[in-house]
Amino acid sequence: MRTIIIGGVAGGMSAATRLRRLDESAEIIVFERGPYVSCANCGLPYYVGGIITDRSELLLQTPSSLHRRFRLDVRTGHEVVSIDTDLKLVTVIELATSTTSTEHYDTLILAVGAAARSDSTFGDIPTHTLRTVDDVDAITALLERDGGTRSALVIGGGFIGLEAAENLVGRGLHTTLIQRGPHILSPLDPEMTVPLESHLRAHGVDVHTSTVIENVTGTLVQLSDGTQQQPDLIIDASGVRPQTALALTAGVRLGPTGGIAVDDQNRTSDAHIFAVGDGVEKIDARTGKPALVTMAGLANRHGRTTADVIAGASDTNAPSLGTAIVAVFDMVAAKVGSSEAELRAAGMPVRAIHTHPTSHAGYYPGAEGMSMKLLVDPESDRILGAQIVGGAGVDKRIDIIAVAMTAGLEASALAKLELAYAPQFGSAKDPINQLGYVADNLRTGATRSVQWHELENARADGATLIDVRSAAEFAAGSIPGALNIPVDELRERLDELPDGPVVVHCQVGQRGHTAARILTQHGIDAVNLDGGFRTWAAGAEVREPAVEVI
Amino acid sequence: MRTIIIGGVAGGMSAATRLRRLDESAEIIVFERGPYVSCANCGLPYYVGGIITDRSELLLQTPSSLHRRFRLDVRTGHEVVSIDTDLKLVTVIELATSTTSTEHYDTLILAVGAAARSDSTFGDIPTHTLRTVDDVDAITALLERDGGTRSALVIGGGFIGLEAAENLVGRGLHTTLIQRGPHILSPLDPEMTVPLESHLRAHGVDVHTSTVIENVTGTLVQLSDGTQQQPDLIIDASGVRPQTALALTAGVRLGPTGGIAVDDQNRTSDAHIFAVGDGVEKIDARTGKPALVTMAGLANRHGRTTADVIAGASDTNAPSLGTAIVAVFDMVAAKVGSSEAELRAAGMPVRAIHTHPTSHAGYYPGAEGMSMKLLVDPESDRILGAQIVGGAGVDKRIDIIAVAMTAGLEASALAKLELAYAPQFGSAKDPINQLGYVADNLRTGATRSVQWHELENARADGATLIDVRSAAEFAAGSIPGALNIPVDELRERLDELPDGPVVVHCQVGQRGHTAARILTQHGIDAVNLDGGFRTWAAGAEVREPAVEVI
Repeated sequence: MRTIIIGGVAGGMSAATRLRRLDESAEIIVFERGPYVSCANCGLPYYVGGIITDRSELLLQTPSSLHRRFRLDVRTGHEVVSIDTDLKLVTVIELATSTTSTEHYDTLILAVGAAARSDSTFGDIPTHTLRTVDDVDAITALLERDGGTRSALVIGGGFIGLEAAENLVGRGLHTTLIQRGPHILSPLDPEMTVPLESHLRAHGVDVHTSTVIENVTGTLVQLSDGTQQQPDLIIDASGVRPQTALALTAGVRLGPTGGIAVDDQNRTSDAHIFAVGDGVEKIDARTGKPALVTMAGLANRHGRTTADVIAGASDTNAPSLGTAIVAVFDMVAAKVGSSEAELRAAGMPVRAIHTHPTSHAGYYPGAEGMSMKLLVDPESDRILGAQIVGGAGVDKRIDIIAVAMTAGLEASALAKLELAYAPQFGSAKDPINQLGYVADNLRTGATRSVQWHELENARADGATLIDVRSAAEFAAGSIPGALNIPVDELRERLDELPDGPVVVHCQVGQRGHTAARILTQHGIDAVNLDGGFRTWAAGAEVREPAVEVI
Repeated sequence: MRTIIIGGVAGGMSAATRLRRLDESAEIIVFERGPYVSCANCGLPYYVGGIITDRSELLLQTPSSLHRRFRLDVRTGHEVVSIDTDLKLVTVIELATSTTSTEHYDTLILAVGAAARSDSTFGDIPTHTLRTVDDVDAITALLERDGGTRSALVIGGGFIGLEAAENLVGRGLHTTLIQRGPHILSPLDPEMTVPLESHLRAHGVDVHTSTVIENVTGTLVQLSDGTQQQPDLIIDASGVRPQTALALTAGVRLGPTGGIAVDDQNRTSDAHIFAVGDGVEKIDARTGKPALVTMAGLANRHGRTTADVIAGASDTNAPSLGTAIVAVFDMVAAKVGSSEAELRAAGMPVRAIHTHPTSHAGYYPGAEGMSMKLLVDPESDRILGAQIVGGAGVDKRIDIIAVAMTAGLEASALAKLELAYAPQFGSAKDPINQLGYVADNLRTGATRSVQWHELENARADGATLIDVRSAAEFAAGSIPGALNIPVDELRERLDELPDGPVVVHCQVGQRGHTAARILTQHGIDAVNLDGGFRTWAAGAEVREPAVEVI
């Protein structure tokens, strides 16, 4: 039995090595168009930035090492250009010699990945994506060119765009980042990413949001916001699309997203052809519908599943949560599941929770702040998504929520998770537990909250805003029109409250909760401003709320 | 309605503040024997070590701040000495004046915690526990005594003992640590803690295992291993027992562990008396039986649950996993659930998995090694426990496993967890996923493994040991009698294998897995040495295997 795998990076190579471990007698051929296989693609930006200094670190395996260990027949520099499903033949061009040949397969795995969404060129400016070793070789050659490369323009403020910007600044380039949408990192909601934009600017990245390239003349770039740039280098991180041209030669069905459609065992519409990786649709865990999720982890896992299926096991893919993380200048942003914007766009009811805890016990040195957002189905208490932006400990908390979502834990159940506590690592009430407490209070009705983007409407409807922080905090910056009554004085000063409903707020939401409980028990219609002043202040910088203001 | 709470630290104070938020009209009195409430007990060792420099950081709240915010009537320096359950009265002594009074309660919460297991004194040597602010005040007074305190003896190699030793070394003391059992940190299995013992010694701690104090004459300590010490200070971290004397005055039932027995709402055998914290039995999640688990997180959570119940809600405790972590000289050890020793002692079948991954992608700078151990029920694939020892990222992985255990995920399901990946934080195949892969291979029978402590018996039964690492690795240190055939040469050198069963091993287990697959498919009875040379080498230093050698 001969299995041909097209594409020799994450998904393809995971399938190849797993298949060999399961079947010593299988014939396994891997065709890779590029010169390398098993590259550390997620490390490429850091090689550009000089954080990874040894280029060989990017090349995890070679055709010969893969032959020695796994008896794989890996042919780099070979492009498969068409698939004949009737004869089960692929047509391959050896690029160095332009020799064309055909090879028979019993089973085929398409693992050709995604490519830059646009292949635009921009006048005379060298333009590269950040997807292959060839890309970074070309970029570093430019960077090492004597004094000629001093500035760069990054197109796209997504995960790769941010990593590119950080690393170009790290190499001393004046770096501009343009983002088509109103905020960077659009899988997160804007009140979460506003602080990240400030952080980028503070580290020297010239961030232009709601901006695209209008035209390029020679090396002069005209941006849609009226500014001009003359970059020595453009990094196109504007996004990717599935590479499907080859699949189409096989008549393989594409899905509604434009990616290759597969079943939960990665089988395409042709029973002898499987597909894995960035070119393939995943199933979104929340909607149950196809989605494009381009993550190395999924590619690896689905490659392994495919090998199991080919070898006769009954493994299936898990639906995808879209867990993702990026670090940029020591600030970390992570997400899992759906954003509030996505949920509202889908017409789903959503309960949002914002908190601002520290990475570990405040009394132990080195605690770093983080902002968390949890999205909950108010009917079922099911967790729909989460976003965390901060420093240390962000990765841990997003992973904990990802596991909780996979396992179907309710939001309130986060309160009771028994996490490892010593003061270097968390708090006796971990930030995760605290999220659960808030979720539980909202579930039982012990607290009601109002969101930052709902505040003005609540006030228009007659609510009074009470700032329950200390007088000093109030003086240092407050929400216009708020009345300051510190929580500790609230019980004695109830008569200062005007009739009608009240919105209370503190710095992060915790004292506000206590204040709302006090007022509610005194017969006052009180709600707490979720996330307090800090979330409100971030929200105040949101240019176009991605969420509908209600 | 009057609620009296006895004990003003974690569990008691969580109950008090939560009860106030739920019930503005409740009368809440907190009696605390000591001078402080709401202390950062888990920070105490770090104040001794000078890592926490500001003593006020240890004192999170005061009676007056708690009155202002929560209208709590907190009375420090008040010891409750007896409880009359018929009249619902407590007898209280105000320690400063020796005045005795009685107070009526409608509901009582016992939150008096645990105390040092022994109250031995040791000749003329100042001896302290590390449980209260008074303790650390006394210890730091000794440390600041002019030149008089140069050496310390720590009794007990558990979590607190390790923290004490690290911090005493940090203060420049010659520090000896004695441990009654054959290995430190006995909730973990010995092959996991052996490297930690070396680490302690490398940082100057004089570790004596299987050692107790035989006698003390003046300031001269005779240890059972024949050595002598003359410490200026003894820290007694030999363990704690529940403080139950007060509970017994109320006729409240104790459980089989000697802790106060409570139902899943923290109600004692007296319907009007609740109990939370270190003095109380928890329910072990695996066995469903009472156990003593002394963790601040559980105390806090159970305090909150108790307040909910008193206020009329129907909240219940979750069973306890015993998640715990300790950092000592930048090495981290963590555990959740049961150890292999505990499982074997209980006569349970157990599948053990050892891995040695890195904290993040090896190609990105700064990756730190860790050793993981996963314990699985071979029948159900249920996760029974885990242990991790290493540096960065240990806390994240133990928490992920804790959540998976809480949610009832199978060990194989770890393979498919979608964790946040960027090269700073993990790998596309995270260490957690890798554990799942191994578990899955063992579940399906794709791999069979043998444990470090089973190797000699397997060889006695005729198995040949093949070291499949490179010749250079083999030369640098190998298991006596092993035959070296690198995995990449295995297929060509099958004829060098003697007849009969084979045990293969590599450095950490991964190449061994590939080798075992190759051999099995060539008809050879091959098993993989779990955890490879690294686990074997740690096991070789185990003095008394806590696990039965089979």
